[in-house]
Amino acid sequence: MIIIGEKINSTKKSIAKAVIERDTAYIQQEALNQYQGGATILDANCGTLDVAEEPEALAWLAQTIQAAVDLPLCIDSPNPLALARGLAVHKGKALINSISGETERFKQVLPLVKQYNAAVVALCMDDKGIPSGFETSAAVGVKLVNSLLEQGIAVGDIYFDPLLRAIATDTAAATDCFKLMELISTQFPGIHVTCGLSNVSHGLPERRHLNRAFMVLAMEHGMNAPIIDPTDPVAMALVYGAATVLNKDKRCIQYTKAYRQGKLSV
Amino acid sequence: MIIIGEKINSTKKSIAKAVIERDTAYIQQEALNQYQGGATILDANCGTLDVAEEPEALAWLAQTIQAAVDLPLCIDSPNPLALARGLAVHKGKALINSISGETERFKQVLPLVKQYNAAVVALCMDDKGIPSGFETSAAVGVKLVNSLLEQGIAVGDIYFDPLLRAIATDTAAATDCFKLMELISTQFPGIHVTCGLSNVSHGLPERRHLNRAFMVLAMEHGMNAPIIDPTDPVAMALVYGAATVLNKDKRCIQYTKAYRQGKLSV
Repeated sequence: MIIIGEKINSTKKSIAKAVIERDTAYIQQEALNQYQGGATILDANCGTLDVAEEPEALAWLAQTIQAAVDLPLCIDSPNPLALARGLAVHKGKALINSISGETERFKQVLPLVKQYNAAVVALCMDDKGIPSGFETSAAVGVKLVNSLLEQGIAVGDIYFDPLLRAIATDTAAATDCFKLMELISTQFPGIHVTCGLSNVSHGLPERRHLNRAFMVLAMEHGMNAPIIDPTDPVAMALVYGAATVLNKDKRCIQYTKAYRQGKLSV
Repeated sequence: MIIIGEKINSTKKSIAKAVIERDTAYIQQEALNQYQGGATILDANCGTLDVAEEPEALAWLAQTIQAAVDLPLCIDSPNPLALARGLAVHKGKALINSISGETERFKQVLPLVKQYNAAVVALCMDDKGIPSGFETSAAVGVKLVNSLLEQGIAVGDIYFDPLLRAIATDTAAATDCFKLMELISTQFPGIHVTCGLSNVSHGLPERRHLNRAFMVLAMEHGMNAPIIDPTDPVAMALVYGAATVLNKDKRCIQYTKAYRQGKLSV
């Protein structure tokens, strides 16, 4: 299971501050915490910075994280210039966040995916915006994945993101998302399916219960690269538990390893 | 959602002691705790007592619980004589635990179901024992439910129990169980599906993570009457979360009610 650690994102004030001040120790500690929690890829996002400052900041962020932990990064920005700077300094195979079916975005990001032989998060949206309802989302998603395959991107380098909506405004948001994950992972064997889980609970109280239930169910429907907080031991224990229950953890090896590492004592 | 509170069961030493000593206060407090946790049916089991003492003890137990909380009980015993005594004093519609496809058990318990117009837990087993593998289990389960329907038992009065096995000895135990739940709930609309969740984790450490993941997934596959510990606030919060994510809680009414009652603050 791939776990994308979400915590180094400048939408969090403490991260924004650390990036602006180039606080190496703070960033590296966040990276280390996530690595120890079980992350296999770390998000690197400083997209809230001034657009002129972001490219250099993202390059610094990527280098700073990789100096502390030996993990690939999810180079994450709406700004192609920042992506390019981050990718230029990244060691190993990066995950670009993100491409989409939007004509302009597709054109801007595709060359970076090819140039750096990177993996890429493919957001299920197009020029009409984020689709709603299963049928429309399925059409947009299938078309996007096919476009990437036609461009020679390997199926395993595509991290499909269904762009989960909030249940509070659409009570079928999660169940529609499961159908979409199932469709994409069945139609394109070997594809990765990712998801920012916490969207599901936007606008509702005590969100973690919804996020956790969603995560367990999404794992059944093909999500194999969640974007989560790997320093949340309850969520991580549930990931190990769900993988075992779903018979994705042969002979319970990962579960018993997590147990021996003390990761299940929450 | 029906929640069958599992805690009044004499396999727990404190319950066995309380039943033997006819400790009304202790039993009633256990009943009240489960009621407040969200149970809608309470199990009443003193099956570890001496066979000669059990019938009278079960009658006392049923009366003692129902004197404290206004809930129906799951009158639970391997002993038909004890079932009969418990049912005779039970107020309202009881749930008998259990009937099965075993010839002798079926003959013994069916008259009680009819006499007391009770609901009944139907264990997926027959004279050959507990079936293993999905195909065999499906055949045994479908035959058992059809036998009950042919006897005039209403489909909604049947609580099918797939008899979940341990993942530690069969890594497909949970996924096979999901298929069986799905089959039975699809083939017999209106049936209840119950399950003693904790069997899944038998033999593995830190069992709660496996039990919780199993519960969330089973809810998707038709389980609508789990046998759980309703005084475990984390498990209960996850039940509310899963129901909401699965779009079984229209307009998030149960979730927000649980929130207002302080049940999600764990």
